[in-house]
Amino acid sequence: MSQTAYPPISEHLDDPESAREEGRRKMDWAFQHMPILTELQKGFEDEKPLSGQSIGMAMHVEAKTANLVETLADGGAEIAITGCNPLSTHDDVSAALDSHENITSYAVRGVDDEEYYAAIEAVIDHEPTITVDDGMDMVAAIHDDYPELIDSIVGGCEETTTGVHRLRAMDADGALNYPVFAVNDTPMKRLFDNVHGTGESSLASIAMTTNLSWAGKDVVVAGYGYCGKGVAQKASGQNANVIVTEVEPRRALEAHMEGYEVMPMAEAAEVGDVFLTTTGNRDVIVKEHFETMGDGVLLANAGHFDIEIDLDALDDLAVDRYEAREGVEAYEMDDGRRLNVIAEGRLVNLAAPIALGHPVEVMDQSFGVQAACVRELVENGESYGPGVHDVPDELDEEIAEIKLAAEGVEFDSLTETQREYMGSWEHGT
Amino acid sequence: MSQTAYPPISEHLDDPESAREEGRRKMDWAFQHMPILTELQKGFEDEKPLSGQSIGMAMHVEAKTANLVETLADGGAEIAITGCNPLSTHDDVSAALDSHENITSYAVRGVDDEEYYAAIEAVIDHEPTITVDDGMDMVAAIHDDYPELIDSIVGGCEETTTGVHRLRAMDADGALNYPVFAVNDTPMKRLFDNVHGTGESSLASIAMTTNLSWAGKDVVVAGYGYCGKGVAQKASGQNANVIVTEVEPRRALEAHMEGYEVMPMAEAAEVGDVFLTTTGNRDVIVKEHFETMGDGVLLANAGHFDIEIDLDALDDLAVDRYEAREGVEAYEMDDGRRLNVIAEGRLVNLAAPIALGHPVEVMDQSFGVQAACVRELVENGESYGPGVHDVPDELDEEIAEIKLAAEGVEFDSLTETQREYMGSWEHGT
Amino acid sequence: MSQTAYPPISEHLDDPESAREEGRRKMDWAFQHMPILTELQKGFEDEKPLSGQSIGMAMHVEAKTANLVETLADGGAEIAITGCNPLSTHDDVSAALDSHENITSYAVRGVDDEEYYAAIEAVIDHEPTITVDDGMDMVAAIHDDYPELIDSIVGGCEETTTGVHRLRAMDADGALNYPVFAVNDTPMKRLFDNVHGTGESSLASIAMTTNLSWAGKDVVVAGYGYCGKGVAQKASGQNANVIVTEVEPRRALEAHMEGYEVMPMAEAAEVGDVFLTTTGNRDVIVKEHFETMGDGVLLANAGHFDIEIDLDALDDLAVDRYEAREGVEAYEMDDGRRLNVIAEGRLVNLAAPIALGHPVEVMDQSFGVQAACVRELVENGESYGPGVHDVPDELDEEIAEIKLAAEGVEFDSLTETQREYMGSWEHGT
Amino acid sequence: MSQTAYPPISEHLDDPESAREEGRRKMDWAFQHMPILTELQKGFEDEKPLSGQSIGMAMHVEAKTANLVETLADGGAEIAITGCNPLSTHDDVSAALDSHENITSYAVRGVDDEEYYAAIEAVIDHEPTITVDDGMDMVAAIHDDYPELIDSIVGGCEETTTGVHRLRAMDADGALNYPVFAVNDTPMKRLFDNVHGTGESSLASIAMTTNLSWAGKDVVVAGYGYCGKGVAQKASGQNANVIVTEVEPRRALEAHMEGYEVMPMAEAAEVGDVFLTTTGNRDVIVKEHFETMGDGVLLANAGHFDIEIDLDALDDLAVDRYEAREGVEAYEMDDGRRLNVIAEGRLVNLAAPIALGHPVEVMDQSFGVQAACVRELVENGESYGPGVHDVPDELDEEIAEIKLAAEGVEFDSLTETQREYMGSWEHGT
Repeated sequence: MSQTAYPPISEHLDDPESAREEGRRKMDWAFQHMPILTELQKGFEDEKPLSGQSIGMAMHVEAKTANLVETLADGGAEIAITGCNPLSTHDDVSAALDSHENITSYAVRGVDDEEYYAAIEAVIDHEPTITVDDGMDMVAAIHDDYPELIDSIVGGCEETTTGVHRLRAMDADGALNYPVFAVNDTPMKRLFDNVHGTGESSLASIAMTTNLSWAGKDVVVAGYGYCGKGVAQKASGQNANVIVTEVEPRRALEAHMEGYEVMPMAEAAEVGDVFLTTTGNRDVIVKEHFETMGDGVLLANAGHFDIEIDLDALDDLAVDRYEAREGVEAYEMDDGRRLNVIAEGRLVNLAAPIALGHPVEVMDQSFGVQAACVRELVENGESYGPGVHDVPDELDEEIAEIKLAAEGVEFDSLTETQREYMGSWEHGT
Repeated sequence: MSQTAYPPISEHLDDPESAREEGRRKMDWAFQHMPILTELQKGFEDEKPLSGQSIGMAMHVEAKTANLVETLADGGAEIAITGCNPLSTHDDVSAALDSHENITSYAVRGVDDEEYYAAIEAVIDHEPTITVDDGMDMVAAIHDDYPELIDSIVGGCEETTTGVHRLRAMDADGALNYPVFAVNDTPMKRLFDNVHGTGESSLASIAMTTNLSWAGKDVVVAGYGYCGKGVAQKASGQNANVIVTEVEPRRALEAHMEGYEVMPMAEAAEVGDVFLTTTGNRDVIVKEHFETMGDGVLLANAGHFDIEIDLDALDDLAVDRYEAREGVEAYEMDDGRRLNVIAEGRLVNLAAPIALGHPVEVMDQSFGVQAACVRELVENGESYGPGVHDVPDELDEEIAEIKLAAEGVEFDSLTETQREYMGSWEHGT
Repeated sequence: MSQTAYPPISEHLDDPESAREEGRRKMDWAFQHMPILTELQKGFEDEKPLSGQSIGMAMHVEAKTANLVETLADGGAEIAITGCNPLSTHDDVSAALDSHENITSYAVRGVDDEEYYAAIEAVIDHEPTITVDDGMDMVAAIHDDYPELIDSIVGGCEETTTGVHRLRAMDADGALNYPVFAVNDTPMKRLFDNVHGTGESSLASIAMTTNLSWAGKDVVVAGYGYCGKGVAQKASGQNANVIVTEVEPRRALEAHMEGYEVMPMAEAAEVGDVFLTTTGNRDVIVKEHFETMGDGVLLANAGHFDIEIDLDALDDLAVDRYEAREGVEAYEMDDGRRLNVIAEGRLVNLAAPIALGHPVEVMDQSFGVQAACVRELVENGESYGPGVHDVPDELDEEIAEIKLAAEGVEFDSLTETQREYMGSWEHGT
Repeated sequence: MSQTAYPPISEHLDDPESAREEGRRKMDWAFQHMPILTELQKGFEDEKPLSGQSIGMAMHVEAKTANLVETLADGGAEIAITGCNPLSTHDDVSAALDSHENITSYAVRGVDDEEYYAAIEAVIDHEPTITVDDGMDMVAAIHDDYPELIDSIVGGCEETTTGVHRLRAMDADGALNYPVFAVNDTPMKRLFDNVHGTGESSLASIAMTTNLSWAGKDVVVAGYGYCGKGVAQKASGQNANVIVTEVEPRRALEAHMEGYEVMPMAEAAEVGDVFLTTTGNRDVIVKEHFETMGDGVLLANAGHFDIEIDLDALDDLAVDRYEAREGVEAYEMDDGRRLNVIAEGRLVNLAAPIALGHPVEVMDQSFGVQAACVRELVENGESYGPGVHDVPDELDEEIAEIKLAAEGVEFDSLTETQREYMGSWEHGT
């Protein structure tokens, strides 16, 4: 199907058939716990709303994402996909996807930089009319290298905080030339994916990589955005003493009022047992901090890129480096202190050896919004101009309602009198 | 000072002098715990930024608000004030304010409807150039009855969720004719005032009015906006089992994912021990709910108006009614069940006999924003057109920084490299 | 009824009749929320198991205790009662009790030391056959001054941590000459009364006395026994940052593992905003601590006696002292710092002006155990020798079952197979 | 070293040398986070307090336990060890241990019943003078089959709730013929191991085996002992809605007052999403419960034996059975419902494929007590008669102090005046 030299996953594997089976089993387990996609898929299969579309995707290729990809394919689209992080691809799931007649998957675990970008190009060679990104690599590559495709692109979806941030900067520069939904900014995405998803899965990944406990630990959370809040809340719920670092005064105050300790990283470095970066920024933990940390500390990142912890500086300081445990690299200082970096400072809930990414149910919600947004682009894409767009509230509410129904949770609706009251301002005391 | 027939507080009291002393003592205690106003007041006294302004206020007149009023007066404004709820005024504080040379206070506890509106008129007779409201009564009265004043009004501030909601409706109708800052919608206001303030003070007021415990209680929180979240979080923190009712699917889902039970009020009515309304809407608990509630339940309201619990319907159902305890009215059903309404269904953290309103520190934050907004209206009011305006981020951040400094909390700031990174989109994986 | 010079409450009051009515209304409210006593009282009224007994009591005389007293009286006993703390008596409740034909109440609020002990003597003049104590004053007075009564005493009940501690010391010295049930040491008492009761009511009393917030506060809890755990848990649940001080290493470690900060008081004094003592020991906060505390701190005690905070030393340090607010005494240091002592360092949930003592439901559980223990003393008292005795598990379980039934909470019971398995040790892997 | 036919681990492995290296690396990581054993080991190495002893152990043989074993060996004892659960052994760690000159390890993962008991016999062939058990298999085997050894046995240690329970039953029957320390019953063990250890590791194991989330889930915790409390607290801290089932009324009430829902398993089965048994009893979830559970539920066990969930009954009900995911067996009902059993109903934090057992720090505390108890048996064993003995408080406190010092946590000590006060009963109000 691909006209490019870079081959799909199946050609990278020795035994693609057994990989497909294993990948399919993983997808089935996830799909069992994805009621929103289950519901949307039914409609997509019946109505084929995406017929005639070519969707180019760069995402974490694992079981949950794969169910989104299949849902879109079942909606009638042709799909080409690659990974958005060299370490987050599950080859078996990639192979299972690639065996779908409407899907070509180029995602392969552990590729080098050259292969990574070759795979992105391979996807773009499919001439997507819609892009779906985790980190805007696809959008960036098209704008940089394939501007001629932009005219035929209906729009895109971007799911990460970091990606949306970069898209908004691009938009502000007048450099974004087709509409992109900021899926990341919906309540559905931020609250569930960032708070619950990142929070739970980062902590569980660290615990199961290290066999260490949270109870009584001083856990330093860098950044108090949605991800940081999730990590702080969940760590506190495991009886850690949470310390927050921030650069924005209102967030700093919010953390303080929540009962957490707030201090500069330079102070936190001296007392922390575990450090988790969630800022989306670079150089959050640097040389001066490494110099004062205690023996045995853990360093991990839950932000999109692996630039929050300055590993180069850490390597310069170290007199020795070794794998202390699978997924844990120990950097030994000249005074004997051991600073343990988990998953090479990459997204810990994806890149740790045992990591599984976000919980299934959380991704079901995010992907439900994604699928609804792709459908919206096809149906009403022309009504959105170039630039970053918020997801329409109706789509977001639709997904919430599907989820609540699937969980058997009922809720109230406004009476006519109440609806009228809420729209009125002519009431006195 | 007043040209109206309705007299200021001092003329309502038998012993205004001792009331003033008591009011002053209350204000002093509060001011000791209001570091933000303390800091702003210093600047206001030096610079008199509000000179020449006449400020008309309708607020809960108690010790904390009084410190805002004095801060504004110390900034050079002439102030006329009345209450925004007949039961929330502290006469002694009102008297202390009234004794300030730049302040006239018409707020008197327990006035009837006629007096309530007469007092609002008395404030308007001072021809305010700025309005500061808790519930938009002042804005509404001016628009309805004194439209001729609007031309000389610089702008207004509105602090409550309900008031802002009504102002936005008015704005949408094209009926709001001067700029009003939606102070309620700032992060500073919503997070601290609504979540922490309403949450803590509502629960403490109910506990100290009833001498009952939260541990093991089924507490039904109607509405999962900021106030509802605060009440739910704090009740859960006192070991209650929290049940949330909602009409908006995303909020319902958010509550469900937080671990609370979500159900329609018709179901919740059957199992709840305590019911707290926080919706800002009317008729939240009605006849059909009263009919199925258990013996001894508590009913209270933490929303702005006393229309969330349908007391008329409750009264119709009751075969007997008596004061079970100060601040608690028992409605006895014909089957012997006793439904206990706290503080007449009015804002429980203000209207219960022992209620003190929001905690001091929380109001310090809200009032800090208010004072900064009033200063902004004077300095740059002409740049805001008629309608509801968000508080500029800089003002909100300024207040957060003052608070953090006062608490001795330090936080990080962006390095040049970080600032540049955050504004850029040209970074790869 | 009394042969002593010290008169019952009615003779201390100007209008005993209206006091009785008010006291009765308070008792009725409490009784509505005391399902355990309600259930026990029914049985007591029918069976009169306490006929012929004279019960001497020294307790906090307020609405909840009063329902225990009446339940015992309804069981057939003659009762004489006085307060166990000069500030915790409600005169109206005392008057209501005193009007019961089987009850004489000597409890009067605000008596001086001489009157306090005269009232205890007045109770003892009734020649109790059973004693019920909150702090072992009755037991101590009888052993010290009326040893001739001991022969006819069936036994006693003691409800406080402090009282039991002192009784055990007395027992260890061979100086306790009749059986006393350590009601305080039952799971029912410790978990619910100490943890939930002290925790909730202490915090609510402080909040409503000061109008201050817990969110973001550094709250120092001295002592991590059951009371300390309750205060720490509930303060944390109001978003305070909790700091624990302890002298026992295992408790210190437990607090640390729970996620709290643990440090010596000398360090905590420098950073705390609120200090709450719960140790049952003396001189917990002393001169060296006052010297380093910040301006505006709150000092309160939740332990039995007012000796945990060294107020004499504080007074020596102060250059000025005044009532900053009802229930709050400000001690001003020579450097301008104000240290605010709540309720004179007495039990804050009883002695603060607005304090109501433990929540009703919590006391219902404690008093249920008390009533069952009194019945046990009458029925099987001869089987207990002199000394401190644990409450038999069956009594404690009986109370738990009554409570669960009243709350509509069902639970499982062991099957025959399970019961057998639990008694066996002959099972392999 | 062994005279038995059953060979040590090294003879079971193809490449014992590389297994040893891997096992040693695992042990090193753990030891880095075991400050208590580190401290004790130093003393043991210097003083060799266990010289001349032969210790027979049946424990979960993984990295943490291995450090206890080495600490005992470094104290001068000869040690023979086997596993206490066929699925919890790490062969590499077993091999690393076996290479120590004083240690013989017979623990091999995945052995069948016959081999399991053969390994126990192999250990007993070393004629232990001290036994250290996780589940009393060693004690039982010696009493049943090698009573002649009992005379020369100094004593034993038992670490599990279940083991202690069975030992006490045995003791009550007069069938326990040497002293055994109930290590499980110390505050150090119960609070940290059961609450924090079982709680954290069970939840993390389930999350990482299933990739599912806790937020918003109805989590049914069977049993509200220390393990159940830990699971409930930690699940609640991950935003689950916790439902507790119990058979003891006081524990049921305690859970209810904590804010959890309490109901019989028959009701919980209908609403639960995840079921975790922690009772130590058998047949907790049985046929009638399986019949009403929803599609997709998870079933796991955190109690010692795999008899809490009746898998035979489940298998009888199922029309199909397959591995839904590694570590998850799906049982499909005839109506299509899938009931997913994790880790075959064995201890989920040990037997799940990715499980790591308790966190390192938690085991450090338990093992610190174990080591101190073994030393106590050698030094003062003769002062303990046959039967179950509580661990002396001094040992427990010693371990707490070592831990606090290692964490840098300081705490207060009693002044002379305070110590005297606590021992006295002659103080008044």
